[in-house]
Amino acid sequence: MNLVNHQIRLAGRPVGLPRSSDWELTETQVPDLQDGQVLVKVHYISVDPAMRGWMNDRETYVPALKLGDVMRALTVGEVVASQNAAFTTGEFVAGVDGVQEYAISDGNLLVKADTDLAPLPAFLNTLGIAGLTAYCGLIEVGGPKPGETVVVSGAAGSVGTHVGQIARIKGCRAVGIAGGPKKCAYLMDELGFDAAIDYKNEALDCGLARTCPDGIDVFFDNVGGEALDAALARINFHARVVICGAISQYNNTTPIEGPRNYLNLLIRSGRLEGFIYFNYRQQWPAIMAELAQWRADDRLKCADDVVEGGVAIFPDTLPRLFSGDNLGKLMIKVAD
Amino acid sequence: MNLVNHQIRLAGRPVGLPRSSDWELTETQVPDLQDGQVLVKVHYISVDPAMRGWMNDRETYVPALKLGDVMRALTVGEVVASQNAAFTTGEFVAGVDGVQEYAISDGNLLVKADTDLAPLPAFLNTLGIAGLTAYCGLIEVGGPKPGETVVVSGAAGSVGTHVGQIARIKGCRAVGIAGGPKKCAYLMDELGFDAAIDYKNEALDCGLARTCPDGIDVFFDNVGGEALDAALARINFHARVVICGAISQYNNTTPIEGPRNYLNLLIRSGRLEGFIYFNYRQQWPAIMAELAQWRADDRLKCADDVVEGGVAIFPDTLPRLFSGDNLGKLMIKVAD
Repeated sequence: MNLVNHQIRLAGRPVGLPRSSDWELTETQVPDLQDGQVLVKVHYISVDPAMRGWMNDRETYVPALKLGDVMRALTVGEVVASQNAAFTTGEFVAGVDGVQEYAISDGNLLVKADTDLAPLPAFLNTLGIAGLTAYCGLIEVGGPKPGETVVVSGAAGSVGTHVGQIARIKGCRAVGIAGGPKKCAYLMDELGFDAAIDYKNEALDCGLARTCPDGIDVFFDNVGGEALDAALARINFHARVVICGAISQYNNTTPIEGPRNYLNLLIRSGRLEGFIYFNYRQQWPAIMAELAQWRADDRLKCADDVVEGGVAIFPDTLPRLFSGDNLGKLMIKVAD
Repeated sequence: MNLVNHQIRLAGRPVGLPRSSDWELTETQVPDLQDGQVLVKVHYISVDPAMRGWMNDRETYVPALKLGDVMRALTVGEVVASQNAAFTTGEFVAGVDGVQEYAISDGNLLVKADTDLAPLPAFLNTLGIAGLTAYCGLIEVGGPKPGETVVVSGAAGSVGTHVGQIARIKGCRAVGIAGGPKKCAYLMDELGFDAAIDYKNEALDCGLARTCPDGIDVFFDNVGGEALDAALARINFHARVVICGAISQYNNTTPIEGPRNYLNLLIRSGRLEGFIYFNYRQQWPAIMAELAQWRADDRLKCADDVVEGGVAIFPDTLPRLFSGDNLGKLMIKVAD
């Protein structure tokens, strides 16, 4: 096919924040397709906090990457060649095709992206990892009931913004924890959160006391550390704590801090539960239809934070997730 | 009625282990009964790790005791006078009647103890707090499936012994963590546990690797601290961690250690859940009937560790729970 591909490969295991020396930019030729294979031209690459965990030499819910592997990433793109009867040239697909310009896939992890429903980047945002993670974690794990108080940490992130809005749609009070007055104003004024706590300017225990006078029924945690402990201190009887992430801990160079207040789960018969949105893959089509409707009705908003510059910009883009300066779903545009 | 009553009252708030100065022995007259009241002559007092938490100046699932209050305790005894149509003189009852010889109750927390089913002390053991806590936590919260591996910490305690045996009855592998070769031999030889780990003589991670080659599906935690962390390190996908207690932490003079490995709950989509057996009060009669049958069939054993000496012996008896030297259900005999 004579197509040139560029990739970002894992070249080092970081201690603490990812460094530029952890990456290598490589160029290869795209090989010919074999039977059953699909060639995807990547348009957008999702940049996610979970990537920090994927850099470690440890199997988690996915195998550990080896040094030299193309960096794992969620992607959306276009089928440009196919030896697989399930996929046709010109179709758009979401997948796990890595930080590269072209990917060869057996089709197993590809999901068709119906761009009549929403533009392609939405399939990494509300109709992709962000919206699906929020929905599966909040609804399937958290089980919120109308009138309950739902608190989300990392509330201005792509998952957090969806969690608060879905909580509102389900008749709950939504309280967000975020860093800085700009993010907090965005949550309340643009997204309809009932309250927001700016953890950079208000102690978390005071902020939670102020915004959750009746306690916390569901805590959706993207952050870990102090946020998790402060929330556990205010949980109600039969509270559900949903563990989606722990972005405050991913770049630790010392051991992770466990939640000191976990015995409140005993005292108040509460539950703390982790999940991966892939667990609910059978339900995705139905969930995506619901998310698409809410999106079309403008009840579910999340900005696309698109960085131009192709795969080469990836090493400089990932650290933005950990410095707190992005708003909305961070992704890299690779092709039109 | 001219009856003399002796009580142990809370006189101090301990830092660390309870001290003798935290208690006061008092003598009062039993007052006349009012309408609706029941007078119970206490026969046995249950001595439980949860008592350490009840000594703190903090509301938990029950209100905090005030200094000068009779120490809260589960009890079994005999109705010796009644102004309550639901109770007749001569009936045996289990209740929460405190560390005292006589208690006046409105009957709300009294449960009739059918001594045709089992002798009275059993209603503080297999048919009381120990058996009910084990059953409710393991079955209702842990949801073990046949063939799964169930690990319990504090396995030689009254709850732990029941957990392992009920796990076996339900077709699971039962692994106990206990301190010392005598307790471990007891678990395996007398109670039929599949394996035991003597944490005083084997590192927990090695012991769990040795006894749980296929990982842990249900971890029933009575201990907290290192036991919880070691177990979290080996949980399987969709594991359930049942938080019943944290006896290693109750006498801490420094902040509680949270479980550092809690993010394995995310990676493996696991759940950590606390409970109180009182939550399942509506189900107790049915559960007690099942427990009584297993007890009668000799499938569910737990020794009564009965201390003689009446209420005055309580201050010296409670610390035995924390030094690891008791085996079976610790209780104090107050009357015949």
